Formats: sequence, structure tokens, C-alpha cells
Amino acid sequence: MSPPTGSPEVAELVARAREGNARSVARLISLVEDASPLLREAMAALVPHGGNAVVVGLTGAPGVGKSTTTNALVAAYRGRSRRVGVLAVDPSSPFSGGALLGDRVRMQDHATDQGVYIRSMASRGHLGGLAWSTPQALRVLDAAGCDVVLVETVGVGQSEVEVAGLADTTVVLLAPGMGDAIQAAKAGILEVGDIYVVNKADRDGADATVRELRHMLSLGERRKPGDWRPPILRTVASRGVGIDEVLEALDQHRSWLTESGQLIERRRRRAADEIEAIAVTALRERIGDLRSGHALVEVADRVLAGELDPYAAADLLIASVTER
Amino acid sequence: MSPPTGSPEVAELVARAREGNARSVARLISLVEDASPLLREAMAALVPHGGNAVVVGLTGAPGVGKSTTTNALVAAYRGRSRRVGVLAVDPSSPFSGGALLGDRVRMQDHATDQGVYIRSMASRGHLGGLAWSTPQALRVLDAAGCDVVLVETVGVGQSEVEVAGLADTTVVLLAPGMGDAIQAAKAGILEVGDIYVVNKADRDGADATVRELRHMLSLGERRKPGDWRPPILRTVASRGVGIDEVLEALDQHRSWLTESGQLIERRRRRAADEIEAIAVTALRERIGDLRSGHALVEVADRVLAGELDPYAAADLLIASVTER
Repeated sequence: MSPPTGSPEVAELVARAREGNARSVARLISLVEDASPLLREAMAALVPHGGNAVVVGLTGAPGVGKSTTTNALVAAYRGRSRRVGVLAVDPSSPFSGGALLGDRVRMQDHATDQGVYIRSMASRGHLGGLAWSTPQALRVLDAAGCDVVLVETVGVGQSEVEVAGLADTTVVLLAPGMGDAIQAAKAGILEVGDIYVVNKADRDGADATVRELRHMLSLGERRKPGDWRPPILRTVASRGVGIDEVLEALDQHRSWLTESGQLIERRRRRAADEIEAIAVTALRERIGDLRSGHALVEVADRVLAGELDPYAAADLLIASVTER
Repeated sequence: MSPPTGSPEVAELVARAREGNARSVARLISLVEDASPLLREAMAALVPHGGNAVVVGLTGAPGVGKSTTTNALVAAYRGRSRRVGVLAVDPSSPFSGGALLGDRVRMQDHATDQGVYIRSMASRGHLGGLAWSTPQALRVLDAAGCDVVLVETVGVGQSEVEVAGLADTTVVLLAPGMGDAIQAAKAGILEVGDIYVVNKADRDGADATVRELRHMLSLGERRKPGDWRPPILRTVASRGVGIDEVLEALDQHRSWLTESGQLIERRRRRAADEIEAIAVTALRERIGDLRSGHALVEVADRVLAGELDPYAAADLLIASVTER
């Protein structure tokens, strides 16, 4: 399974990352972000060492307290001596940094803790986007010995739901406030939650939000015996209130996943998504390469002249991509 | 160029749409939205009749007055007896309708005008999304004899910039308000504008917004002689103030496009984008078809077992897709 010509650099990086060297972990994730040519080899070296980390997705609209909750969960996991990775992804932004980096400042409690890796990721305009990069970054953190990886995403719609699909367990965060549950429903995140958390539960309107949420969840409910019933929990993450209960629910969901056979199902789907994203991106790249040449311009001109319809033009393009 | 077996239904639809029958135009755009199997044939029949419409993109953040401005532009064009199509696209929403449909209510001034087609489009979860559907919907309106097609998009980031790339001329709308130009810059829309319009210019802060915008545009400026210099205009679209000046700027940009040779360049790029989107979507569909079979699950299981890395798995997938 090792690549035919292994570069000493990649082998060294992977070996050091597996020993828990934070700099090597960071470097490997940068290879993912930059879509480095070395990545393929790195993934091949990492693959045999994965599958141990529990992947927890954390999502919700801006302002519900995702960073604070992540912070509190990290502290709780560290209190149980688990090694934790945090991957904060922003599907809506082509830029790295910004608001996310600002949030990361709050995470500096853990900055000097050897058992915690924290990383912000943006799609940086790479063709495959976060559906392509997130699973590969997860592989790095998994192989580096993280017991838990928290994937934090901003709840903004379609691509975010995709990222949530990467997790073993998805936690959907809400906060008290008129219409929050309705917003969440619109964004499609009420379909992906395994655990719902109403954060800032000491504020006015928390009861109403819980009620509203329970109602909306019951609307779509068609459960069979043995199905997981998503709990609705309350936290005040800034003071650590209710965090132990979230950890407990995460453990319970984990047990259910294993016993029901859903864990293997979810991981199979995740691997399939990852492979699919890599394959589609590779094909897109091949087509993109044609833009630098004349093939695409030639067929485009024929379409402009009304000689060729766009579907026939696409057929020509596909033929030239797949026949090489 | 006509398809080998033309269905009478499609030929009839195209013929009636070319005569200006609104119902046939609507039906053809529905074929695009639904990714109908009849679409290929419809595009082949439409292609020889295109290339006449001027395509104007209109974008900006929510609240700047896009619908009102579109409405005012439609009225102005109708005053000059031009036939106008409006395509309102929402790149951020997988749902059709919602806010956009609400906005459309305001357009009912034109509802009974035979010279205006108005249509909202959402990606509806189709694989190729709006990059796939928008150019094809444009083809319909173009072939139906529209002199101008206004493509209105919500300014929310990457995909929106892609849609703006479809236009001959892109109008970026802003409104007075602290940081609006900065928000626009973040969303990447300050790089795509051919004409900038500060709407609601009777409000406090309009001067500041114009200044700020001028400053931000000058930052990235590296123009050669003969390059287009994007004007910054002021409107109060709700009262029709400044709309004639926008039309004038649109005409000037159109002249510049033709004289500089940029029109053919932009349309070539648009056709290339359209062909590329169709080709990539077709390849994705082929890969997606594999999910219903066992091929993808098998390679996914080998990756889970650590026997295969995801890149090697993707290679197997690509091979099975391209060899058929």
C-alpha cells in the first residue's frame, strides 16, 4: 500500500505527527489546504493509522455560541485526559481567517496544552472546497492520535449540511430568540442533528426555544423502535453549565452508533463522500486544464456561432478528458 | 445541428417561445430548473437563435434595493420599447421561493406587460447548481427575443460572483451604511463590477459610501489606457431617481465592450463556463450513479479497512466512469 517512490519528507512528517508533534500535524493539514502534490502520498501513509477518533460535528447560526461551546467541550474532554482536535471550517468564505480567527482567540486557554490541536480551515478557493479538504484534514488528526475531533461549522446552508455529514455525531446549537428554530429549519440543520443544545439557557426565551424546537422536531418524526431519539439539552457554555450532560449524550449516541451498526454505515458514507469528492475534483481539474489550451475555446466559439449546442460541446470535452 | 429524433413537443415549445409566447418561455425555463431529459434537445433548437440579448447582472447585499432597482430598470427599458427578461437567482438557497418570491410581488407592476418575462430561480438541489442552470435559462430568454436580460443575484459570496460572471455588464449595488463597501469587498463583488450604484442616495451617509467605495476601488486599480473605468452612480430607485443615468452607463459600457473586443471575449468565457458546467455535471452524475450500485461502497470499505488510500480509490472510480 505504500506509494512506489516515498519521499523522505512525507514519511518523516507522518511519523512525527503520529508521535504527536503539533508542528508536523499543522504542516500536514497545510498540505491539505494547499492541495499539495505531496498530499496523495501523505494520505496513503496516514490511512492505515485512522479510524480511532470520534468525530463530533458542531453547527449552528452565528451568535449561538459555537466557539464558547467548543471551548467548554475541549476543557471537559481534557479533564478526562482525552486528546482533542478542533477543526473550525467556514463553508461560506473563500478566505481563511476573518471572524473565525477572531473566535479562535477565545480558544487560547488551550494554546499551550499538548493534548489539543486547533485549526481553522477555509476552502481558499480550491476546486473541491471543504467537502474535499475536511475529510482529509480529519484523517491527519485521527492518525495523530486524537481521541475526539470536533468539527465546528457555521450554519449557513447547503455546504454546511454536507460538512455536518462528515461527523459520527452532529450537535446542533441554538440560542434563545424568536424564530431561531425556524431559521435552523430553513437552513436544513434540523435534519442533521443527533443532539440539540439550547445554549445561553439562562436567558429569557430559553423555554420557548426548547418548546419550539421540540415541536419542529416532532413534525418530521417518523421513528421506528430502536431509532435514536435526539435529546434537547440546555447549556450556559460560558460558565460550563450543562457541558457534562452534553458529553454524556455524546457517549450515549456513540454507544447507540456502535450497537445499531450505524457507526460503520456513517463511516462508509463518509469514505464514499471523500472518494467521490476527490474523483470529481480530479475530473474537474482535467477539464480545467483544457482551458489553458485551445480545445475549450474552440468548442465555445462553435457554440457562440450557433453551430453546436452546449451539450454536444460538453460531450466533446468529456471525450477529450476521458480518452487520454 | 438538429437532433436526430426531434420531439414535436420541444419543437413546438421553441417555435412558440420565439413568437413571444410567455407560457412556452416559462415551460422551457422549467425544463432547465428540473434538468429535464428534454433539455438537451431544447438547447439544440435554441442555440441558432441566440446572441442578441444584452445580459446585465445586478448584485449586492440584501437590503440595498435590488428588486426596486430591477423594477425601475425594467420600467425604463419598457419606456424605450425594449423587451426585457428578469432572472432572479438565489445562489445561497436550495429552496425555490422564499424571500425572492416575496420580492417578486413588488414586480407586479409589470405582470400584465407582454414585453416582460420575470422568473425566480433557485438551484433546487440540482447537482450543477446555478452555474449550470443560469446560462441555459439565459438562452431561453435570449432566443425568445428579449433585448435585455437582467440577472439579479443576492451578494453572498463565491457562487454569486460566478453568476455575475455570466453577464455582459455587471452592476454592483450598495446602500449608505457604515462598512457596506467593506462588506462588498469581503464578498468579492468589488472585483466584478462594471458599474457601481449607490442606491438610497437620499439617505444620510451616501456621500461617505461613495467616498469609501471610490477609495476601495482605487486600491486595486491598475488600469491601462483604453480600459473601462467603472463609474459610481447614485440612485433613489424607489422614486426612479438616477435610473436614466444607469441606463446611459449601461449603453456606454455596451459600446466599450463592442469596440474593445471584450464582448466576444466575455461571451466566449460565458460559453466556456456553460460547457464546462454541463461536462462536470455529467461526469458527477456518472459517479453518482455508481453510488446506487456496489462499486463505490466496495472501494469505501477498502479505504475504511486501511487497505486503500482515498486517492487510489478515486482513481478506480474515475476508471470505471470513463471506460464505459
